[in-house]
Amino acid sequence: MNKIITIGREFGSGGREFGKHLAEELGFAYYDEEIVSAIARRSELAESYVSQVLEHRIQTYYPITVANTLSLHHGDAVYAVTGSIYAAQTEILREMAEKSDCVIVGRCGDYILSQFQPLRFFLYADMPSRIARCRAKGEDNRSRTDRELERNIRSVDRSRAQYYRFYTGQAWGDRHNYDICLNATNLNLKAAAQAIAILVRRGPLEQPEQ
Amino acid sequence: MNKIITIGREFGSGGREFGKHLAEELGFAYYDEEIVSAIARRSELAESYVSQVLEHRIQTYYPITVANTLSLHHGDAVYAVTGSIYAAQTEILREMAEKSDCVIVGRCGDYILSQFQPLRFFLYADMPSRIARCRAKGEDNRSRTDRELERNIRSVDRSRAQYYRFYTGQAWGDRHNYDICLNATNLNLKAAAQAIAILVRRGPLEQPEQ
Repeated sequence: MNKIITIGREFGSGGREFGKHLAEELGFAYYDEEIVSAIARRSELAESYVSQVLEHRIQTYYPITVANTLSLHHGDAVYAVTGSIYAAQTEILREMAEKSDCVIVGRCGDYILSQFQPLRFFLYADMPSRIARCRAKGEDNRSRTDRELERNIRSVDRSRAQYYRFYTGQAWGDRHNYDICLNATNLNLKAAAQAIAILVRRGPLEQPEQ
Repeated sequence: MNKIITIGREFGSGGREFGKHLAEELGFAYYDEEIVSAIARRSELAESYVSQVLEHRIQTYYPITVANTLSLHHGDAVYAVTGSIYAAQTEILREMAEKSDCVIVGRCGDYILSQFQPLRFFLYADMPSRIARCRAKGEDNRSRTDRELERNIRSVDRSRAQYYRFYTGQAWGDRHNYDICLNATNLNLKAAAQAIAILVRRGPLEQPEQ
C-alpha cells in the first residue's frame, strides 16, 4: 500500500508550505486542494487532462487558479454542484492514493482516504502569525488591515469547518481526527518536515509497544 | 538557555513512555509528575534530598510512589495544601530547567516554564487504546472491566483538566497551548521520539520562513 499523508489546516497556518516541504523531503507526489478541485471540476470536460495528471506524479505546483467551489451562491444548486464535485474528487483522491505515495492538502483527505491509513496532520497557528503570513503571501493583502485579514481568516476557517462537517460528520480540527497536530506559530516548518520525513520512512503507524 | 520539553497528556495515552523515549534519545534529564510532586512535598522536610535530586540529572526512573495531591478531601485545606505544593513545585521546576536540558511530564510544565520557551507536547489517544494501555500497565487493572477503566480514565482526565485550568487559566488539551500534539492510538512512540529528537537537536522553535 502506498504511503499517504493528509494535511488539514487553519487558514494562514502554513499547511501548504509544510506539505510541500514534506513531499520534497520524501519524494512524494504533492496535491493541494486547488489541484484536486480543479481536476474534479474539469474531469467531465477533459478526461485526457485528468489522466495526464494522474499518470505523472505532480512534484511541481500547478499554476491552476480556480474559483472556490463554496463561493458559488445559487441556493440548492450549490449542493448539487459541490456534491458532484465532492463525488468526483473522492474518486480522484482514491486514484491518486492508489497511484503513488503522496501528500494531500485539504479536501477531507484524511476522511476520504481512511482505507489507506494515511498519516493525518493538522496545522494551526495563533492569529497574529496567521495574519502576518497572509500579508506576506498575498499581494492583495498588503494594504488590508489586521482586522480585515482576521475577518477573512475566520470566514475561510468557518467554510472549511462546515465543509468538513458536511461531508465527514466529524469536527474539523478535533485532535482525535488527526495523528499529529502541529502549531506553526513558532515552529520551523522545514525542520519539522525533515524530522517527520524520517518518521514516515520508518513507518510511524505501528501499535506502540506495551 | 537549556532545552526544555514539556508533555501534557490524556491519562493512558502513553505520555510518560513517550517522554522517557525522548529523554533517552536526547540524553536529557527526565522528570515525571510523581517525581516533581514528591520533591515538592518533601522539600520542607528534606532539603538535602531535593538538592541531591537537582544536582544529578535523573535519567533513571525513581520508584517514588506518592498520593495524588488532588485525592485529598479536606475542604478548604485542599487548596492550602495543593497551593503550597504548587508553589514549591513551580520553584523546583524552574530550578530543574535552569540546571540542565530536560523532559518534564505533567504538572503544568508548559505554563510554569514558559519563560524557557519549552517545546510543548500533548499526547492523546482513543478510548479503546487507553483502556488497553491501562490494563497492560497496572496489575490492579487486569481484573477490571472496560467500563470501570473508562470511568477511571475520564475521572483522572477531569482532575487534570481542573488542575490545569485552576493554575493556568487555560484549557487543558486545547491545541493552541501546545507546539505538537500526538495521537498515540496507532503511533509508534519510540519512532516518533527518535524523529522528534532530530527536530529538537536542530532547534525547532524558529520563525517559519515567509
